[in-house]
Amino acid sequence: MTDELHVRLQRLEDEREIARLIASYGPSVDSGNADSAASLWAENGTYDVEGWRMNSRDDVHGMVSSQSHQDLVANGCCHFLGPCVVTVTGDTAVALCESLVLLRRGDEYVAWRATANHFELSRQGGGWKIVARTSRLLNGNPKAHGLLLAGLSGVAATLNP
Amino acid sequence: MTDELHVRLQRLEDEREIARLIASYGPSVDSGNADSAASLWAENGTYDVEGWRMNSRDDVHGMVSSQSHQDLVANGCCHFLGPCVVTVTGDTAVALCESLVLLRRGDEYVAWRATANHFELSRQGGGWKIVARTSRLLNGNPKAHGLLLAGLSGVAATLNP
Amino acid sequence: MTDELHVRLQRLEDEREIARLIASYGPSVDSGNADSAASLWAENGTYDVEGWRMNSRDDVHGMVSSQSHQDLVANGCCHFLGPCVVTVTGDTAVALCESLVLLRRGDEYVAWRATANHFELSRQGGGWKIVARTSRLLNGNPKAHGLLLAGLSGVAATLNP
Repeated sequence: MTDELHVRLQRLEDEREIARLIASYGPSVDSGNADSAASLWAENGTYDVEGWRMNSRDDVHGMVSSQSHQDLVANGCCHFLGPCVVTVTGDTAVALCESLVLLRRGDEYVAWRATANHFELSRQGGGWKIVARTSRLLNGNPKAHGLLLAGLSGVAATLNP
Repeated sequence: MTDELHVRLQRLEDEREIARLIASYGPSVDSGNADSAASLWAENGTYDVEGWRMNSRDDVHGMVSSQSHQDLVANGCCHFLGPCVVTVTGDTAVALCESLVLLRRGDEYVAWRATANHFELSRQGGGWKIVARTSRLLNGNPKAHGLLLAGLSGVAATLNP
Repeated sequence: MTDELHVRLQRLEDEREIARLIASYGPSVDSGNADSAASLWAENGTYDVEGWRMNSRDDVHGMVSSQSHQDLVANGCCHFLGPCVVTVTGDTAVALCESLVLLRRGDEYVAWRATANHFELSRQGGGWKIVARTSRLLNGNPKAHGLLLAGLSGVAATLNP
Protein backbone atom coordinates (compact mmCIF):
# COMPACT_ATOMS: atom_id res chain seq x y z
CA MET A 1 0.00 0.00 0.00
CA THR A 2 2.73 2.41 0.88
CA ASP A 3 4.39 1.39 -2.37
CA GLU A 4 1.24 2.30 -4.26
CA LEU A 5 1.13 5.68 -2.50
CA HIS A 6 4.71 6.32 -3.49
CA VAL A 7 4.02 5.52 -7.10
CA ARG A 8 1.03 7.84 -7.22
CA LEU A 9 2.86 10.65 -5.46
CA GLN A 10 5.87 10.27 -7.74
CA ARG A 11 3.66 10.54 -10.80
CA LEU A 12 2.12 13.79 -9.55
CA GLU A 13 5.58 15.15 -8.82
CA ASP A 14 6.86 14.14 -12.24
CA GLU A 15 3.95 15.87 -13.95
CA ARG A 16 4.48 18.94 -11.78
CA GLU A 17 8.17 19.10 -12.70
CA ILE A 18 7.42 18.81 -16.39
CA ALA A 19 4.69 21.46 -16.25
CA ARG A 20 7.13 23.74 -14.42
CA LEU A 21 9.84 23.13 -17.01
CA ILE A 22 7.51 24.01 -19.87
CA ALA A 23 6.19 27.08 -18.01
CA SER A 24 9.84 28.20 -17.72
CA TYR A 25 10.42 28.37 -21.46
CA GLY A 26 8.58 31.62 -22.15
CA PRO A 27 10.14 33.61 -19.30
CA SER A 28 13.58 32.30 -20.30
CA VAL A 29 13.41 33.38 -23.93
CA ASP A 30 11.44 36.59 -23.28
CA SER A 31 14.19 37.78 -20.96
CA GLY A 32 16.74 36.76 -23.60
CA ASN A 33 18.49 34.44 -21.17
CA ALA A 34 20.18 31.76 -23.27
CA ASP A 35 21.57 29.84 -20.28
CA SER A 36 18.14 29.49 -18.72
CA ALA A 37 16.48 28.39 -21.97
CA ALA A 38 19.25 25.96 -22.89
CA SER A 39 19.14 24.34 -19.44
CA LEU A 40 15.66 23.01 -20.23
CA TRP A 41 17.08 20.73 -22.93
CA ALA A 42 19.09 17.54 -22.68
CA GLU A 43 22.61 17.91 -24.01
CA ASN A 44 21.63 16.30 -27.31
CA GLY A 45 18.05 17.44 -27.23
CA THR A 46 16.47 18.76 -30.41
CA TYR A 47 14.08 21.57 -31.31
CA ASP A 48 12.43 21.48 -34.70
CA VAL A 49 10.39 24.58 -35.44
CA GLU A 50 8.84 24.77 -38.90
CA GLY A 51 11.55 22.47 -40.18
CA TRP A 52 14.43 24.56 -38.79
CA ARG A 53 16.19 21.99 -36.64
CA MET A 54 18.36 22.69 -33.61
CA ASN A 55 20.30 19.58 -32.63
CA SER A 56 21.61 20.24 -29.14
CA ARG A 57 21.40 22.33 -26.00
CA ASP A 58 24.16 24.45 -27.52
CA ASP A 59 22.04 25.10 -30.60
CA VAL A 60 19.17 26.30 -28.41
CA HIS A 61 21.63 28.53 -26.60
CA GLY A 62 22.76 29.94 -29.92
CA MET A 63 19.19 30.63 -31.05
CA VAL A 64 18.39 32.65 -27.91
CA SER A 65 21.74 34.45 -28.10
CA SER A 66 21.28 35.34 -31.76
CA GLN A 67 20.86 38.94 -32.83
CA SER A 68 17.46 38.21 -34.33
CA HIS A 69 16.14 36.81 -31.06
CA GLN A 70 17.74 39.55 -28.96
CA ASP A 71 16.10 42.09 -31.26
CA LEU A 72 12.71 40.56 -30.47
CA VAL A 73 13.46 40.82 -26.74
CA ALA A 74 14.61 44.43 -27.02
CA ASN A 75 11.42 45.36 -28.83
CA GLY A 76 9.23 43.32 -26.49
CA CYS A 77 8.02 39.78 -27.07
CA CYS A 78 5.90 37.27 -25.19
CA HIS A 79 6.15 33.53 -25.79
CA PHE A 80 2.97 32.41 -24.08
CA LEU A 81 2.68 28.63 -23.61
CA GLY A 82 -0.63 27.28 -22.38
CA PRO A 83 -1.40 24.56 -19.85
CA CYS A 84 0.09 21.27 -21.00
CA VAL A 85 -1.17 17.70 -21.24
CA VAL A 86 1.54 15.48 -19.74
CA THR A 87 1.85 11.70 -20.05
CA VAL A 88 4.61 10.07 -18.01
CA THR A 89 5.79 6.54 -18.76
CA GLY A 90 8.59 5.54 -16.43
CA ASP A 91 11.59 7.71 -17.22
CA THR A 92 10.17 9.21 -20.39
CA ALA A 93 7.27 11.54 -20.98
CA VAL A 94 5.32 13.34 -23.68
CA ALA A 95 3.83 16.78 -23.17
CA LEU A 96 1.64 18.88 -25.43
CA CYS A 97 0.55 22.48 -25.44
CA GLU A 98 -0.44 25.26 -27.74
CA SER A 99 1.40 28.56 -27.65
CA LEU A 100 1.20 32.13 -28.83
CA VAL A 101 4.00 34.53 -29.67
CA LEU A 102 3.09 38.18 -29.30
CA LEU A 103 5.24 41.07 -30.48
CA ARG A 104 4.97 44.67 -29.39
CA ARG A 105 3.83 47.03 -32.14
CA GLY A 106 3.44 50.58 -30.97
CA ASP A 107 1.24 50.67 -27.86
CA GLU A 108 -0.17 47.19 -28.42
CA TYR A 109 0.87 43.63 -29.16
CA VAL A 110 0.12 41.50 -32.19
CA ALA A 111 -0.18 37.72 -32.25
CA TRP A 112 2.52 36.70 -34.66
CA ARG A 113 2.24 32.96 -34.18
CA ALA A 114 -0.14 30.33 -32.82
CA THR A 115 1.58 26.99 -32.63
CA ALA A 116 1.23 23.29 -31.71
CA ASN A 117 4.11 22.12 -29.50
CA HIS A 118 4.96 18.48 -28.88
CA PHE A 119 7.63 17.65 -26.29
CA GLU A 120 9.45 14.40 -25.60
CA LEU A 121 11.26 14.39 -22.26
CA SER A 122 13.46 12.10 -20.26
CA ARG A 123 14.38 11.88 -16.61
CA GLN A 124 18.08 12.59 -16.19
CA GLY A 125 20.48 13.21 -13.35
CA GLY A 126 19.42 16.84 -13.04
CA GLY A 127 15.71 16.17 -13.44
CA TRP A 128 13.43 16.11 -16.48
CA LYS A 129 14.89 17.51 -19.70
CA ILE A 130 13.54 18.03 -23.22
CA VAL A 131 14.94 15.50 -25.68
CA ALA A 132 12.80 16.59 -28.64
CA ARG A 133 10.50 19.55 -29.17
CA THR A 134 8.58 19.81 -32.41
CA SER A 135 6.52 22.90 -33.22
CA ARG A 136 4.30 23.72 -36.18
CA LEU A 137 2.09 26.70 -36.88
CA LEU A 138 -1.66 26.28 -36.65
CA ASN A 139 -2.22 27.37 -40.23
CA GLY A 140 -4.04 24.35 -41.60
CA ASN A 141 -0.84 22.30 -41.81
CA PRO A 142 -1.79 18.65 -41.21
CA LYS A 143 1.55 18.15 -39.48
CA ALA A 144 0.43 20.53 -36.72
CA HIS A 145 -2.72 18.45 -36.32
CA GLY A 146 -0.64 15.29 -36.12
CA LEU A 147 1.45 16.82 -33.32
CA LEU A 148 -1.68 17.72 -31.39
CA LEU A 149 -3.17 14.25 -31.65
CA ALA A 150 0.12 12.48 -30.86
CA GLY A 151 0.51 14.70 -27.80
CA LEU A 152 -3.01 13.99 -26.58
CA SER A 153 -2.31 10.27 -26.93
CA GLY A 154 1.06 10.55 -25.19
CA VAL A 155 2.97 9.10 -28.13
CA ALA A 156 6.04 10.29 -30.00
CA ALA A 157 5.72 12.71 -32.89
CA THR A 158 6.25 11.29 -36.34
CA LEU A 159 6.08 14.08 -38.86
CA ASN A 160 7.03 11.96 -41.86
CA PRO A 161 4.46 9.25 -42.52
CA MET B 1 -3.79 8.74 8.93
CA THR B 2 -3.25 6.62 5.89
CA ASP B 3 -6.89 7.23 5.07
CA GLU B 4 -6.31 10.95 5.29
CA LEU B 5 -3.30 10.63 2.97
CA HIS B 6 -5.40 8.74 0.48
CA VAL B 7 -8.08 11.40 0.51
CA ARG B 8 -5.57 14.19 -0.06
CA LEU B 9 -3.78 12.29 -2.80
CA GLN B 10 -7.05 11.43 -4.50
CA ARG B 11 -8.06 15.08 -4.52
CA LEU B 12 -4.81 16.10 -6.19
CA GLU B 13 -5.26 13.36 -8.76
CA ASP B 14 -8.85 14.39 -9.43
CA GLU B 15 -7.83 18.00 -9.97
CA ARG B 16 -4.99 16.89 -12.21
CA GLU B 17 -7.35 14.77 -14.34
CA ILE B 18 -9.79 17.62 -14.72
CA ALA B 19 -7.06 20.10 -15.63
CA ARG B 20 -5.78 17.64 -18.20
CA LEU B 21 -9.25 17.14 -19.67
CA ILE B 22 -9.76 20.87 -20.07
CA ALA B 23 -6.27 21.31 -21.52
CA SER B 24 -7.23 18.68 -24.12
CA TYR B 25 -10.13 20.67 -25.53
CA GLY B 26 -8.13 23.17 -27.58
CA PRO B 27 -5.83 20.61 -29.23
CA SER B 28 -8.84 18.43 -30.02
CA VAL B 29 -10.85 21.09 -31.81
CA ASP B 30 -7.84 22.83 -33.40
CA SER B 31 -6.90 19.57 -35.07
CA GLY B 32 -10.52 19.14 -36.13
CA ASN B 33 -10.77 15.81 -34.34
CA ALA B 34 -14.42 15.32 -33.47
CA ASP B 35 -13.88 11.99 -31.72
CA SER B 36 -11.30 13.46 -29.38
CA ALA B 37 -13.38 16.51 -28.53
CA ALA B 38 -16.59 14.53 -28.04
CA SER B 39 -14.86 12.06 -25.72
CA LEU B 40 -14.42 14.85 -23.17
CA TRP B 41 -18.18 15.05 -22.63
CA ALA B 42 -20.57 12.72 -20.83
CA GLU B 43 -23.03 11.04 -23.17
CA ASN B 44 -25.74 13.51 -22.23
CA GLY B 45 -23.39 16.37 -21.46
CA THR B 46 -24.30 19.85 -22.67
CA TYR B 47 -22.40 22.79 -24.16
CA ASP B 48 -24.10 26.15 -24.20
CA VAL B 49 -22.11 28.79 -26.04
CA GLU B 50 -23.78 32.19 -26.39
CA GLY B 51 -27.16 30.51 -26.07
CA TRP B 52 -26.49 27.94 -28.80
CA ARG B 53 -27.06 24.72 -26.90
CA MET B 54 -25.55 21.33 -27.72
CA ASN B 55 -27.32 18.60 -25.75
CA SER B 56 -25.09 15.55 -26.01
CA ARG B 57 -21.68 14.15 -26.83
CA ASP B 58 -23.05 13.52 -30.32
CA ASP B 59 -23.94 17.19 -30.69
CA VAL B 60 -20.39 18.19 -29.76
CA HIS B 61 -19.14 15.68 -32.33
CA GLY B 62 -21.37 17.27 -34.91
CA MET B 63 -20.14 20.77 -34.12
CA VAL B 64 -16.49 19.79 -34.60
CA SER B 65 -17.33 17.82 -37.76
CA SER B 66 -19.31 20.68 -39.26
CA GLN B 67 -18.10 22.47 -42.37
CA SER B 68 -17.90 25.77 -40.54
CA HIS B 69 -15.61 24.36 -37.87
CA GLN B 70 -13.50 22.42 -40.38
CA ASP B 71 -13.10 25.65 -42.35
CA LEU B 72 -11.66 27.32 -39.25
CA VAL B 73 -9.21 24.44 -38.84
CA ALA B 74 -8.16 24.54 -42.49
CA ASN B 75 -7.47 28.27 -42.24
CA GLY B 76 -5.73 27.96 -38.87
CA CYS B 77 -7.37 28.46 -35.48
CA CYS B 78 -6.23 28.29 -31.87
CA HIS B 79 -8.64 27.70 -29.00
CA PHE B 80 -6.45 28.72 -26.10
CA LEU B 81 -7.84 27.83 -22.67
CA GLY B 82 -6.05 29.21 -19.64
CA PRO B 83 -5.20 27.58 -16.31
CA CYS B 84 -8.39 26.50 -14.56
CA VAL B 85 -9.73 26.82 -11.03
CA VAL B 86 -11.05 23.39 -10.04
CA THR B 87 -13.31 22.56 -7.09
CA VAL B 88 -13.97 18.85 -6.50
CA THR B 89 -16.83 17.72 -4.27
CA GLY B 90 -16.98 13.94 -4.12
CA ASP B 91 -17.91 12.68 -7.57
CA THR B 92 -18.77 16.07 -9.01
CA ALA B 93 -16.65 19.10 -9.76
CA VAL B 94 -16.78 22.64 -11.07
CA ALA B 95 -13.98 24.15 -13.14
CA LEU B 96 -13.51 27.67 -14.45
CA CYS B 97 -11.22 29.24 -16.98
CA GLU B 98 -11.02 32.06 -19.46
CA SER B 99 -10.18 31.33 -23.07
CA LEU B 100 -9.16 33.01 -26.29
CA VAL B 101 -9.91 31.97 -29.85
CA LEU B 102 -7.38 33.19 -32.40
CA LEU B 103 -7.84 32.97 -36.15
CA ARG B 104 -5.12 33.23 -38.74
CA ARG B 105 -5.38 36.34 -40.93
CA GLY B 106 -2.57 36.66 -43.43
CA ASP B 107 0.74 36.31 -41.63
CA GLU B 108 -0.70 36.96 -38.19
CA TYR B 109 -3.52 35.91 -35.89
CA VAL B 110 -6.40 37.94 -34.55
CA ALA B 111 -8.19 37.39 -31.25
CA TRP B 112 -11.73 36.71 -32.29
CA ARG B 113 -13.12 35.82 -28.89
CA ALA B 114 -12.30 36.14 -25.20
CA THR B 115 -14.67 34.03 -23.15
CA ALA B 116 -15.67 32.92 -19.66
CA ASN B 117 -16.02 29.13 -19.43
CA HIS B 118 -17.80 27.33 -16.60
CA PHE B 119 -17.63 23.53 -16.48
CA GLU B 120 -19.61 21.05 -14.41
CA LEU B 121 -18.08 17.58 -14.38
CA SER B 122 -18.81 14.17 -12.96
CA ARG B 123 -16.73 11.12 -12.24
CA GLN B 124 -17.85 8.27 -14.48
CA GLY B 125 -16.65 4.80 -15.36
CA GLY B 126 -14.12 6.18 -17.83
CA GLY B 127 -12.95 9.04 -15.63
CA TRP B 128 -14.09 12.64 -15.31
CA LYS B 129 -16.42 13.92 -18.03
CA ILE B 130 -18.06 17.27 -18.77
CA VAL B 131 -21.77 17.26 -17.96
CA ALA B 132 -22.34 20.96 -18.65
CA ARG B 133 -20.14 23.64 -20.20
CA THR B 134 -21.43 27.19 -20.37
CA SER B 135 -19.49 29.88 -22.22
CA ARG B 136 -20.16 33.59 -22.63
CA LEU B 137 -18.11 36.31 -24.28
CA LEU B 138 -16.35 38.84 -22.10
CA ASN B 139 -18.14 41.78 -23.71
CA GLY B 140 -19.74 43.36 -20.68
CA ASN B 141 -22.46 40.69 -20.52
CA PRO B 142 -23.38 40.25 -16.83
CA LYS B 143 -23.98 36.54 -17.54
CA ALA B 144 -20.27 36.12 -18.27
CA HIS B 145 -19.48 37.76 -14.94
CA GLY B 146 -21.93 35.41 -13.22
CA LEU B 147 -20.15 32.41 -14.73
CA LEU B 148 -16.80 33.68 -13.51
CA LEU B 149 -18.01 34.21 -9.96
CA ALA B 150 -19.89 30.90 -9.81
CA GLY B 151 -16.78 29.14 -11.05
CA LEU B 152 -14.55 30.80 -8.47
CA SER B 153 -16.99 29.71 -5.76
CA GLY B 154 -17.22 26.18 -7.12
CA VAL B 155 -20.97 26.33 -7.58
CA ALA B 156 -23.21 25.50 -10.52
CA ALA B 157 -23.93 28.10 -13.19
CA THR B 158 -27.36 29.67 -13.12
CA LEU B 159 -27.69 31.99 -16.06
CA ASN B 160 -31.33 32.86 -15.44
CA PRO B 161 -31.79 34.72 -12.17
CA MET C 1 8.81 7.59 5.89
CA THR C 2 5.29 8.70 6.52
CA ASP C 3 6.76 12.04 7.51
CA GLU C 4 8.50 12.25 4.16
CA LEU C 5 5.25 11.44 2.38
CA HIS C 6 3.52 14.20 4.29
CA VAL C 7 6.15 16.71 3.33
CA ARG C 8 5.93 15.81 -0.34
CA LEU C 9 2.15 15.84 -0.33
CA GLN C 10 2.06 19.17 1.47
CA ARG C 11 4.35 20.69 -1.13
CA LEU C 12 2.11 19.58 -3.96
CA GLU C 13 -0.91 20.98 -2.14
CA ASP C 14 0.85 24.27 -1.49
CA GLU C 15 1.76 24.62 -5.15
CA ARG C 16 -1.76 23.72 -6.15
CA GLU C 17 -3.23 26.36 -3.82
CA ILE C 18 -0.91 29.03 -5.17
CA ALA C 19 -1.65 28.12 -8.78
CA ARG C 20 -5.35 28.29 -7.99
CA LEU C 21 -4.99 31.68 -6.33
CA ILE C 22 -3.18 33.11 -9.35
CA ALA C 23 -5.68 31.55 -11.75
CA SER C 24 -8.40 33.35 -9.77
CA TYR C 25 -7.04 36.82 -10.44
CA GLY C 26 -8.24 37.18 -14.03
CA PRO C 27 -11.81 35.98 -13.41
CA SER C 28 -12.02 38.27 -10.35
CA VAL C 29 -11.03 41.45 -12.12
CA ASP C 30 -12.75 40.62 -15.42
CA SER C 31 -16.05 40.28 -13.58
CA GLY C 32 -15.26 43.55 -11.80
CA ASN C 33 -15.54 41.89 -8.39
CA ALA C 34 -13.37 43.93 -6.03
CA ASP C 35 -14.03 41.69 -3.00
CA SER C 36 -12.86 38.60 -4.86
CA ALA C 37 -9.72 40.26 -6.21
CA ALA C 38 -8.81 41.90 -2.89
CA SER C 39 -9.19 38.60 -1.03
CA LEU C 40 -6.16 37.26 -2.90
CA TRP C 41 -3.88 39.76 -1.14
CA ALA C 42 -2.59 39.86 2.41
CA GLU C 43 -3.94 42.82 4.37
CA ASN C 44 -0.72 44.75 3.81
CA GLY C 45 0.11 43.13 0.52
CA THR C 46 1.39 45.31 -2.30
CA TYR C 47 0.88 45.48 -6.07
CA ASP C 48 3.34 47.49 -8.11
CA VAL C 49 2.38 47.75 -11.76
CA GLU C 50 4.62 49.94 -13.93
CA GLY C 51 5.64 51.87 -10.84
CA TRP C 52 2.07 52.58 -9.71
CA ARG C 53 2.09 51.10 -6.22
CA MET C 54 -0.90 49.79 -4.30
CA ASN C 55 0.01 49.24 -0.66
CA SER C 56 -2.76 47.10 0.79
CA ARG C 57 -5.68 44.82 0.14
CA ASP C 58 -7.86 47.90 0.38
CA ASP C 59 -5.88 49.59 -2.37
CA VAL C 60 -6.41 46.58 -4.63
CA HIS C 61 -10.11 46.76 -3.80
CA GLY C 62 -10.10 50.40 -4.77
CA MET C 63 -8.38 49.73 -8.08
CA VAL C 64 -10.97 47.13 -9.12
CA SER C 65 -13.82 49.34 -7.90
CA SER C 66 -12.55 52.38 -9.78
CA GLN C 67 -14.50 53.85 -12.64
CA SER C 68 -11.62 53.25 -15.04
CA HIS C 69 -11.49 49.53 -14.24
CA GLN C 70 -15.28 49.17 -14.27
CA ASP C 71 -15.30 50.82 -17.69
CA LEU C 72 -12.91 48.14 -18.96
CA VAL C 73 -15.22 45.45 -17.59
CA ALA C 74 -18.31 47.02 -19.13
CA ASN C 75 -16.62 47.14 -22.52
CA GLY C 76 -15.17 43.64 -22.19
CA CYS C 77 -11.68 42.78 -20.95
CA CYS C 78 -9.71 39.61 -20.38
CA HIS C 79 -6.78 39.43 -17.97
CA PHE C 80 -5.22 36.18 -19.09
CA LEU C 81 -2.51 34.84 -16.78
CA GLY C 82 -0.50 31.86 -17.99
CA PRO C 83 0.70 28.76 -16.13
CA CYS C 84 2.95 29.79 -13.25
CA VAL C 85 6.30 28.60 -11.95
CA VAL C 86 5.95 28.20 -8.18
CA THR C 87 8.75 27.82 -5.62
CA VAL C 88 7.65 27.13 -2.04
CA THR C 89 10.07 27.60 0.86
CA GLY C 90 8.38 26.82 4.14
CA ASP C 91 5.70 29.43 4.72
CA THR C 92 6.75 31.71 1.90
CA ALA C 93 6.70 31.27 -1.85
CA VAL C 94 7.57 32.95 -5.12
CA ALA C 95 5.50 32.52 -8.26
CA LEU C 96 6.06 33.77 -11.79
CA CYS C 97 3.92 34.00 -14.87
CA GLU C 98 3.44 36.05 -17.98
CA SER C 99 0.06 37.58 -18.72
CA LEU C 100 -1.92 39.23 -21.47
CA VAL C 101 -4.65 41.84 -21.20
CA LEU C 102 -7.09 41.85 -24.08
CA LEU C 103 -9.70 44.54 -24.68
CA ARG C 104 -12.74 44.24 -26.88
CA ARG C 105 -12.63 46.49 -29.95
CA GLY C 106 -15.65 46.06 -32.19
CA ASP C 107 -16.11 42.39 -33.00
CA GLU C 108 -12.60 41.42 -31.95
CA TYR C 109 -10.12 41.80 -29.13
CA VAL C 110 -6.76 43.51 -29.11
CA ALA C 111 -3.80 42.60 -26.94
CA TRP C 112 -3.19 45.76 -24.97
CA ARG C 113 -0.50 44.42 -22.67
CA ALA C 114 1.94 41.53 -22.34
CA THR C 115 3.50 41.53 -18.91
CA ALA C 116 5.96 39.79 -16.57
CA ASN C 117 4.40 39.10 -13.17
CA HIS C 118 6.40 38.23 -10.04
CA PHE C 119 4.52 37.23 -6.90
CA GLU C 120 5.72 36.84 -3.33
CA LEU C 121 3.29 34.95 -1.13
CA SER C 122 2.98 33.86 2.47
CA ARG C 123 0.99 31.20 4.24
CA GLN C 124 -1.51 32.84 6.57
CA GLY C 125 -4.48 31.75 8.67
CA GLY C 126 -6.79 31.78 5.66
CA GLY C 127 -4.32 30.11 3.30
CA TRP C 128 -1.76 31.53 0.90
CA LYS C 129 -1.96 35.26 0.20
CA ILE C 130 -0.04 37.66 -2.05
CA VAL C 131 2.31 39.89 -0.07
CA ALA C 132 3.92 41.54 -3.10
CA ARG C 133 3.10 41.48 -6.80
CA THR C 134 5.35 43.30 -9.22
CA SER C 135 4.43 43.61 -12.90
CA ARG C 136 6.29 45.17 -15.79
CA LEU C 137 5.46 45.29 -19.49
CA LEU C 138 7.46 43.12 -21.88
CA ASN C 139 8.62 46.10 -23.93
CA GLY C 140 12.36 45.70 -23.69
CA ASN C 141 12.45 47.03 -20.12
CA PRO C 142 15.34 45.27 -18.33
CA LYS C 143 13.27 45.36 -15.14
CA ALA C 144 10.75 43.01 -16.71
CA HIS C 145 13.61 40.66 -17.58
CA GLY C 146 14.84 40.86 -13.99
CA LEU C 147 11.41 39.87 -12.71
CA LEU C 148 11.32 36.88 -15.04
CA LEU C 149 14.73 35.62 -13.98
CA ALA C 150 14.08 36.21 -10.26
CA GLY C 151 10.82 34.32 -10.56
CA LEU C 152 12.45 31.39 -12.35
CA SER C 153 15.03 31.23 -9.55
CA GLY C 154 12.41 31.51 -6.83
CA VAL C 155 13.95 34.62 -5.32
CA ALA C 156 12.48 37.98 -4.35
CA ALA C 157 12.20 40.76 -6.90
CA THR C 158 14.65 43.61 -6.57
CA LEU C 159 13.84 46.23 -9.15
CA ASN C 160 16.49 48.71 -8.00
CA PRO C 161 19.97 47.37 -8.56
